[in-house]
Amino acid sequence: MRTYFDCIPCFIRQVIDSLRVITGDEAIHEQVLRRVLDLASEMDLRQSPPAMAQKIHRIIRQLTEIDDPYKEVKTRFNAFALELYPGLQKLVMESEDPFETAVRLAIAGNIIDLGVKSSLGIPEVERSIKESLTVPFDTTNMDEFKNASVEAHNILYIGDNSGEIVFDRFLIEQIGPERITFVVRGRPVINDATIEDAHAAGLMDLVKVIDSGDDAPGTILESCSEEFRIHFEQSDMVIAKGQGNFESLSDIDKNIFFLLRAKCPVIANHLDCKIGEMILHKSKLLNHVVELAKEAE
Amino acid sequence: MRTYFDCIPCFIRQVIDSLRVITGDEAIHEQVLRRVLDLASEMDLRQSPPAMAQKIHRIIRQLTEIDDPYKEVKTRFNAFALELYPGLQKLVMESEDPFETAVRLAIAGNIIDLGVKSSLGIPEVERSIKESLTVPFDTTNMDEFKNASVEAHNILYIGDNSGEIVFDRFLIEQIGPERITFVVRGRPVINDATIEDAHAAGLMDLVKVIDSGDDAPGTILESCSEEFRIHFEQSDMVIAKGQGNFESLSDIDKNIFFLLRAKCPVIANHLDCKIGEMILHKSKLLNHVVELAKEAE
Repeated sequence: MRTYFDCIPCFIRQVIDSLRVITGDEAIHEQVLRRVLDLASEMDLRQSPPAMAQKIHRIIRQLTEIDDPYKEVKTRFNAFALELYPGLQKLVMESEDPFETAVRLAIAGNIIDLGVKSSLGIPEVERSIKESLTVPFDTTNMDEFKNASVEAHNILYIGDNSGEIVFDRFLIEQIGPERITFVVRGRPVINDATIEDAHAAGLMDLVKVIDSGDDAPGTILESCSEEFRIHFEQSDMVIAKGQGNFESLSDIDKNIFFLLRAKCPVIANHLDCKIGEMILHKSKLLNHVVELAKEAE
Repeated sequence: MRTYFDCIPCFIRQVIDSLRVITGDEAIHEQVLRRVLDLASEMDLRQSPPAMAQKIHRIIRQLTEIDDPYKEVKTRFNAFALELYPGLQKLVMESEDPFETAVRLAIAGNIIDLGVKSSLGIPEVERSIKESLTVPFDTTNMDEFKNASVEAHNILYIGDNSGEIVFDRFLIEQIGPERITFVVRGRPVINDATIEDAHAAGLMDLVKVIDSGDDAPGTILESCSEEFRIHFEQSDMVIAKGQGNFESLSDIDKNIFFLLRAKCPVIANHLDCKIGEMILHKSKLLNHVVELAKEAE
């Protein structure tokens, strides 16, 4: 997905919000803001929003001299999600359709995104998880998603945020972890999950985990590591969590299922849905292949 | 009032909104946006928001090659306000407190501001006017404002938007037009009123009208004409309408009463009020003088 004009004021607002969370030093706020405005004035709008966010958060880390500004927040959300884990696991096991419940929880967890919204309370996340279990959502692609996950030999599951990745465990358990490689970011960016979070979330003992080799809050293939790209190419199914992964992978020619909450008007407009909606979206290519198959029948 | 960090993403959003109203040409949208971002990266934040808005709208007019992009909108709101004028005049005359009703209508008219919000419907304005007559608002300064307007020899009444200036007529009639000089902008900017609008609104036959000599959507004294500045200095009371005039004159050492609707979070925070609230605000200096007088008693 390209960067829309409307993304630009939103980037600037996010920068200000983030900076206020990270430091009270207004001189740094101003320095970062000026650098980001200058960057935005020359940005390539054909690139996806995470490409800009990557550059912005490099500037923030450089000028604040804080390598991992969201470290504490990430730890808090991992711990919070782990507290909920046993109860939710029971709920998944006892539910009528454990696969769908696991999908719902994986999408619900995607609310823990401090990119779009810089401050988020635990009560809001609790509410989101509770609602996610019953809220109506478009499950048109559910059967196809389930079948694909049964048939695939090699699934790449690209995670998104810390805390959220705990909720991904239910879906990984439903699909079967042995065919899955789970991906975290290569370096800290916003509250996106890294290897450290995968350890904290209990993923390392469950599933093979690799990192993207990159610090984009999304998956920009050209800047990911060689190792990641080989995994990506060799997988026959990709599960990509969250808005950043959607934005950066939506135009890629690959069998990808996107699980996310639509968190901004641009995405909602792009996906023709409401803000806040839970989304299980097939990649365009997959739509295209299905249409071709139908035509051939 | 200085430009706050939060004004910057709002400027960028306003630019995009304005451009969409003015032209469908996305190449121009992008050109303007890049120029504005570059400008913002080097802006002097000690200046008031209208100083930035002035530069932005010069860029918009230059790159769209449209001298008065809001001409049609201005004509429409002048005509709409004139339609309401006779009924509202009757209402003012018959009301219990015609002065306060006139103040309320003058503030209500300030909703016709396409700077903060690029599209505005006539029903919204009608609703605003109706509400303004009864909505509770802080009238702490009303008596002082009324007394000052009786005692002043030379009142400068700085208008704001087209359409809105029709509603200023009630207050001008209440105070008595003979001691008032009414001010419009020197050149078109957004939907701010110019001499052309003063003609359309029926102000020329009622009161002496001059222009600021400038194209800022506010009153930046240093860039106003010599003629305007002389009037400003010689006046013993200034009535300044709207957010742009407030932002650009709030730190000026002068006897100014500001009548406006607080239309954005930054102003609401600055004035410690709610968004949308009707405001009758005394200049700081005036507060200061009153406090000194009280101390002296």
